[in-house]
Amino acid sequence: MTNHNTDNGSAQTRIALEQARLFVRNRIEQTLNRSTAAVRDVMDHLTQSSGKYFRAYLLLAAAADENDQVPVAAVDAAAALEILHLATLVHDDIIDDAPLRRGQPSVQSRFGKKTAVLSGDYLFSLALTLLAGIAEQYPVKYSEFSRAIAQICLGELSQHQHNHDPNITVFSYLRIIAGKTAILFSLAMYAGAILNGDTEDKARRLGRFGHYLGMHFQLADDCLDYEASTETMKKQTSKDLAEGVVTLPLILALAQNPTLRSIVSRLDLSTQEIAQITSDVVNQGHVRSARAFATRYQQRAENLLSQISGATRRQRLSGILAAIITRSY
Amino acid sequence: MTNHNTDNGSAQTRIALEQARLFVRNRIEQTLNRSTAAVRDVMDHLTQSSGKYFRAYLLLAAAADENDQVPVAAVDAAAALEILHLATLVHDDIIDDAPLRRGQPSVQSRFGKKTAVLSGDYLFSLALTLLAGIAEQYPVKYSEFSRAIAQICLGELSQHQHNHDPNITVFSYLRIIAGKTAILFSLAMYAGAILNGDTEDKARRLGRFGHYLGMHFQLADDCLDYEASTETMKKQTSKDLAEGVVTLPLILALAQNPTLRSIVSRLDLSTQEIAQITSDVVNQGHVRSARAFATRYQQRAENLLSQISGATRRQRLSGILAAIITRSY
Repeated sequence: MTNHNTDNGSAQTRIALEQARLFVRNRIEQTLNRSTAAVRDVMDHLTQSSGKYFRAYLLLAAAADENDQVPVAAVDAAAALEILHLATLVHDDIIDDAPLRRGQPSVQSRFGKKTAVLSGDYLFSLALTLLAGIAEQYPVKYSEFSRAIAQICLGELSQHQHNHDPNITVFSYLRIIAGKTAILFSLAMYAGAILNGDTEDKARRLGRFGHYLGMHFQLADDCLDYEASTETMKKQTSKDLAEGVVTLPLILALAQNPTLRSIVSRLDLSTQEIAQITSDVVNQGHVRSARAFATRYQQRAENLLSQISGATRRQRLSGILAAIITRSY
Repeated sequence: MTNHNTDNGSAQTRIALEQARLFVRNRIEQTLNRSTAAVRDVMDHLTQSSGKYFRAYLLLAAAADENDQVPVAAVDAAAALEILHLATLVHDDIIDDAPLRRGQPSVQSRFGKKTAVLSGDYLFSLALTLLAGIAEQYPVKYSEFSRAIAQICLGELSQHQHNHDPNITVFSYLRIIAGKTAILFSLAMYAGAILNGDTEDKARRLGRFGHYLGMHFQLADDCLDYEASTETMKKQTSKDLAEGVVTLPLILALAQNPTLRSIVSRLDLSTQEIAQITSDVVNQGHVRSARAFATRYQQRAENLLSQISGATRRQRLSGILAAIITRSY
């Protein structure tokens, strides 16, 4: 029986942060490409439209030490996190009937909903296989990761059940995006810190920072969805509203204008109606109010940052926060 | 930092096998019922139509020692296995458009395909959360379990891609059911043995026994699907064929009768045609030939049984094999 290093990453081999980013990309492509014939077409399609691997970078950034060195186990963890995220996107697109994802046809539109169900499941288990390799080294933390994954699924489910729900409260909505978006950011930073060998206390602080980042990220996204539609000259419409997804700007509008409720709960809004509601939400200042929420999370992240020790790391995290604010990640 | 018992179950507290069976049922219901509002209706629905928890029993039977005592960790492992199985059923029913499951409306027909996608994901992660608790004690084995789970998803995917495929070979078909059904039986017995504290060698032998059980179980099921339809006086039809699932009796018929291929590959078979093909497959002796395959796996299981040490355990496993043969589990 081999002796295992239980929950202690500090003794591990380290590589440079920038090198680790490249390794993560390779690890993801390798993992997807090694798939057998049954899923190869789907996996090829997915690697051709890869994302920016931002969640992976969050994990690596939290795992890097004062010399910008990352423990090697962080590469697999970061790859697992991205593949897990990919699994949720493939299933999300089924729920939302989304035709496109990352500018390419979504798996469900290209290969059908049934293949999309199974491909998502397959990606899910690929992620877990990668994570399991790390579980051998970090047995105690592993159940926490699994619980977070269950939480993510639950977040998706609540959001789906609140689509077209004009009575959703601001509080419920914040809880939903916490469980859907922010939890993955939080998990990334917490896991990174644990891999770096940080104390539980410090890792939780980084996880909290990730939560604030994620909340800001999602709320800013919600605002952009309404703003983008009015900024362009073409009379564009809120994509979220068109898909029946009720987000914060609309929730704030509904609170002030209850007559809007019966319209929003309908499933057959015309393009004309969507455009009208979109411009009302913007013009009545609800996007501005929603932005104030986003800013509050940004401030919380900034405050927390000052409590994180290690100048290089603090600067690195500060850079990530700035990148999220300016959308330049 | 707590000290962890790495991959050694022999030191654990044990409870009686029959008590463990009750505990598994409670653990599953508890786990599903603890779910938050978003999924509560689906989980209620699933607990009302619970299965026989046969896979859980396989695990417990493999984990029990010569005094019919089971290590407590086996309860969570068995519950996790059943919840994992439930997750695959919920997603399977989406793929097959199945209206019923265990005599009740399937999740997809009762709550819609979208809720079924997410509920399956949620069940999947509940299973993993349960398993993760065990991973803390068995870090090294855990990645093997995860790989098996990935294998199960892949098995489902291959089967889905071979639906309506009249050119599928016997070999491909056996590989598909190995990865879809037999792997879960094999995993149950392997994991049980590991939890019991057996050597890797002995655990693999039990896993192999589970594989043969699973192959027999599935092939006998395939045969029953054709036989049941002709035994009753009502002109019933093969349910598999009606759903476009090509199984061994039909594969053997197709090999002898290539003209049948163009008919089977159609998606719009009439009830009349399905009934005709069903009775042809039976009358031309292809179910009998398929039964010979099932018997071969039964014999392999019997042969392996003689190599398994421990009289009580051997008798217990022999009882399970008999229950599968007589369908009285």
